[in-house]
Amino acid sequence: MRRACVVGASRGLGLALAKHLARRGDAVLCAARTPTAALAELERDFPHSVTVLQMDVTDAPSVADAAERAQGILASPGRPPGLELLCHTAGLLQDKSRGVIPENGLHRLDPEAIHYTFAVNVLGPLMVLKHFAPLLKASETEGPLVPQAPKSTAVFYSARVGSIGDNVTGGWYSYRSSKAALNQVVRTASVELARHRVCCFALHPGTVDTDLTRAFARARSKYTVQDVDEAAENHLAIIASRRMEHAGRFFDWRAEEIPW
Amino acid sequence: MRRACVVGASRGLGLALAKHLARRGDAVLCAARTPTAALAELERDFPHSVTVLQMDVTDAPSVADAAERAQGILASPGRPPGLELLCHTAGLLQDKSRGVIPENGLHRLDPEAIHYTFAVNVLGPLMVLKHFAPLLKASETEGPLVPQAPKSTAVFYSARVGSIGDNVTGGWYSYRSSKAALNQVVRTASVELARHRVCCFALHPGTVDTDLTRAFARARSKYTVQDVDEAAENHLAIIASRRMEHAGRFFDWRAEEIPW
Repeated sequence: MRRACVVGASRGLGLALAKHLARRGDAVLCAARTPTAALAELERDFPHSVTVLQMDVTDAPSVADAAERAQGILASPGRPPGLELLCHTAGLLQDKSRGVIPENGLHRLDPEAIHYTFAVNVLGPLMVLKHFAPLLKASETEGPLVPQAPKSTAVFYSARVGSIGDNVTGGWYSYRSSKAALNQVVRTASVELARHRVCCFALHPGTVDTDLTRAFARARSKYTVQDVDEAAENHLAIIASRRMEHAGRFFDWRAEEIPW
Repeated sequence: MRRACVVGASRGLGLALAKHLARRGDAVLCAARTPTAALAELERDFPHSVTVLQMDVTDAPSVADAAERAQGILASPGRPPGLELLCHTAGLLQDKSRGVIPENGLHRLDPEAIHYTFAVNVLGPLMVLKHFAPLLKASETEGPLVPQAPKSTAVFYSARVGSIGDNVTGGWYSYRSSKAALNQVVRTASVELARHRVCCFALHPGTVDTDLTRAFARARSKYTVQDVDEAAENHLAIIASRRMEHAGRFFDWRAEEIPW
């Protein structure tokens, strides 16, 4: 049984990934700041394999505590606790209640909003990497290993607008710079984790029909809008096809590489 | 008379830049969190052109207040307050008193240290851009403008280790990711500021003989260590040779482009 953890599993892409993983028979830890009814339903549907894990990525002690609980949940006779897959989907583009908006100019920059965006999009992944890396390193792939196949995989959801080289329109200061920072976090961690045959990479999901993109209805009309379940299935196919040579790189939903 | 502002002017490269600018006859605002004796001496040596401006880049109201004071200082009969040059040298690599170290592994990540590194290296430049952009836009270059020459220039000191594509050794999570975020900030701002003929770019100074690099004596021996005064002079030559086509790009001290 493969063991997976989805961070940001309460809704959107995270929830869809958790469903697909449960259906294919994985043990799934569903980490969420605020577990939803949909997540509780998934736990009821798969009582032996799905476990909801309350965790707030912006709160370091909460992440440390969740990782400790994960150790206990994943412990089983004759097999050390480990994770074969970590999908980090938690991310913030806007939150009007906190004044977080995609800023269209320097005059719109708000220090509190910037701080919170970085707490979710950068500090969160860093704390998850710190506390879940021991589980990823302790993974055990069943059956013979394919040459260059990773023992475990950690995928971090980034965004094409985080690409510096690709940035010709400007705007969205906090989101863009937090995702560029995330890309550097992924790249840096990929070097450390590759020594343990953990493949860590960044993924741009494209425009998926979720709450995050729904707020940008006009912009969405310019792009291919993907169904969330089809997108999750596609991402799992990309994840399954990654080899160690893909570690520390940035791919879009067509598995095409994005410039930094 | 050209008008310049150096952010982080209390020591190291910032102080050397301020000295060179004062000697060549510019009006220089020297912004520093903790003005030093060396900075007070520079102000005494150039009482009519150098002004020390207390400002803490991690404190948004302090930056807003300093920009307002700058407006007053730069006001002169018949010429609206403006800046022809902004050099942002303030940056943080380590501060042991705050637990900020270049982390050699995920287990060394400390949330408070990460937060403070981003406050200095990312929030700082964002707040300086927000509050000083009006002065950069209001610049007035004396004499006829060379085609493609900027009306004013904003240079942000970044670091090659912020380059994601160039990162093959890993480590230094906070510093690397904060400088990648800074590079994206510079790129994003460059789009907005280019509309006003302000050239905004990122500069990697290389290894200069300052407090920041002195802590890494062993690593320094691998690199060409530059004298701080020669480095400042060289940077001013690079700045003077920038055209609008260089906006939003990342150069090293040889004026060679660095990948993102």
